[in-house]
Amino acid sequence: MPEHFADRLMRAIKEKDSRVCVGIDPVYERLPVRLKGRARYDERDVARAVEDFCTPILEAVRDDAAAVKFNSAFFEVLGPFGGELLQRLIATSLRLGLITIVDAKRSDIGSTAGWYARAVFANYVPVAMRHADAVTINPWLGSDGTLPFINEAKRIGGGVFVLVKTSNPSSAELQDLVADGKPIYRRVADLVSRWGAEHVGESGYSSVGAVVGATHPEQLSELRRAMPHAPLLVPGFGAQGGGPEDVAGAFDDEGLGAIVNSSRGIIFAWEQEKYRDRFGAEGFDRAAAAAAAEMRNAINSAIDAPEADRGG
Amino acid sequence: MPEHFADRLMRAIKEKDSRVCVGIDPVYERLPVRLKGRARYDERDVARAVEDFCTPILEAVRDDAAAVKFNSAFFEVLGPFGGELLQRLIATSLRLGLITIVDAKRSDIGSTAGWYARAVFANYVPVAMRHADAVTINPWLGSDGTLPFINEAKRIGGGVFVLVKTSNPSSAELQDLVADGKPIYRRVADLVSRWGAEHVGESGYSSVGAVVGATHPEQLSELRRAMPHAPLLVPGFGAQGGGPEDVAGAFDDEGLGAIVNSSRGIIFAWEQEKYRDRFGAEGFDRAAAAAAAEMRNAINSAIDAPEADRGG
Repeated sequence: MPEHFADRLMRAIKEKDSRVCVGIDPVYERLPVRLKGRARYDERDVARAVEDFCTPILEAVRDDAAAVKFNSAFFEVLGPFGGELLQRLIATSLRLGLITIVDAKRSDIGSTAGWYARAVFANYVPVAMRHADAVTINPWLGSDGTLPFINEAKRIGGGVFVLVKTSNPSSAELQDLVADGKPIYRRVADLVSRWGAEHVGESGYSSVGAVVGATHPEQLSELRRAMPHAPLLVPGFGAQGGGPEDVAGAFDDEGLGAIVNSSRGIIFAWEQEKYRDRFGAEGFDRAAAAAAAEMRNAINSAIDAPEADRGG
Repeated sequence: MPEHFADRLMRAIKEKDSRVCVGIDPVYERLPVRLKGRARYDERDVARAVEDFCTPILEAVRDDAAAVKFNSAFFEVLGPFGGELLQRLIATSLRLGLITIVDAKRSDIGSTAGWYARAVFANYVPVAMRHADAVTINPWLGSDGTLPFINEAKRIGGGVFVLVKTSNPSSAELQDLVADGKPIYRRVADLVSRWGAEHVGESGYSSVGAVVGATHPEQLSELRRAMPHAPLLVPGFGAQGGGPEDVAGAFDDEGLGAIVNSSRGIIFAWEQEKYRDRFGAEGFDRAAAAAAAEMRNAINSAIDAPEADRGG
């Protein structure tokens, strides 16, 4: 029986004393010139340059991040080479002991959802290929669309994060509509609690988690209470505007139960003057590590995480 | 300036006198034994067997189908080889003159949505690679998540189909909730009309379409009226339970404005006794063509499509 996803996630948070998730959203145009110079600008070379950028970053942040989140869009756009690249980076991330999330925001129904789930969690054909720990999923289609992911995740000790309240401004258009006195995002939170109820691990957390944006601090606290067993994945920190105080409500009394994602703020930290002055463009990986450490400390200070939990 | 997506779609419907969309959802286990025999059951061989199944079907249905819809899940599960395979099949489908839809049900925000859109509509790196005509997208994240797809589609004369009301039983969990006297799916329909208003072609239809399941006949008529300019993509025909009468409400007075999708009922028609008796397992492609033709005629009869529009 593989170890429970949420138990592994909470242990990673405690051991590393980090609530940081590093978002790997690589954009070729923003790579350091040295890496771009190698690419002849065909798909294979672009994928290679992106790999030469992402791999050192994964290694550099391994001690300061509890998790990494690969956004599938940035790999899909590279075509089939992007698919291979994502598989290699997932394998690297798992080898480094990072909780590895694929941010694919998938949605489909019934058997089709099952195929998506197998695409993420296990390879269809029985070759020795590693799989991700968790995937983000979109709840719009209801239980038919989410249960196949939850069930497939369970088989391998994986998890899901359901998009409950996203960090973008227009999330209000549907998610904040009020039905029978309750915003729709609260309805989704109720579904998340229901879907996750039978998948709670020893940590008290379920393998069914939720995505709640850092850009909605009050809703973050409200949703923490509404889904006491759901690990929260909190995007929108940094570049999108959320700060350490904004995310404090995502955590339980022991400083557990959530990870906060920053993508551009970490992987492109080398573009910021304060990091570039220290590390130069060559040191993009050390800049990422420094930014991850700074984010870790800022969040830990904001939530006043109990010393007892701080990595022994 | 590329020709408008909806104009191309409506012309295909008229010229072929067909409202049929063939869903390409291939499952290796269900391929004819002859094709499976070639696979050593590694990913590359599985992808090749799937290609040997799909390519003849595309060729066989070209006259009876207005469109084909590739469900991304069935290709993603084959790993990177599945990605290459999907690109080749899209190119084949476009070469055959079929309106080519990628059913990816994607959702993300801002720049990330833009990368997904470019992954579907154009390749990031400037190699000569064909792109799909349209993609399905999930509205849960609101305008931030849909406009990047709509804008990217426009550049190449493509379109999107927004998931308004899906065909699965649990679609009611969120989509049917009532806010301010209106079900949420009607809110999404209003958004679709708003997003599509500035993208209406000469046919009177927009490049912003909607997915509405065949399993909800009354809602189909209601949504046809609510979104008079949106081409409808209607899944749920056949295997999922919708019949010709159930989809009649999707069409306008001229028998235009919608395509109806069937996947398993067509590509696996050879498994059904009536087709297997005629064509055998070897004739899986001819069985698919016969099933597509039968579906075309059944829908045309149900909507009593005016003779004047019937393929000249």
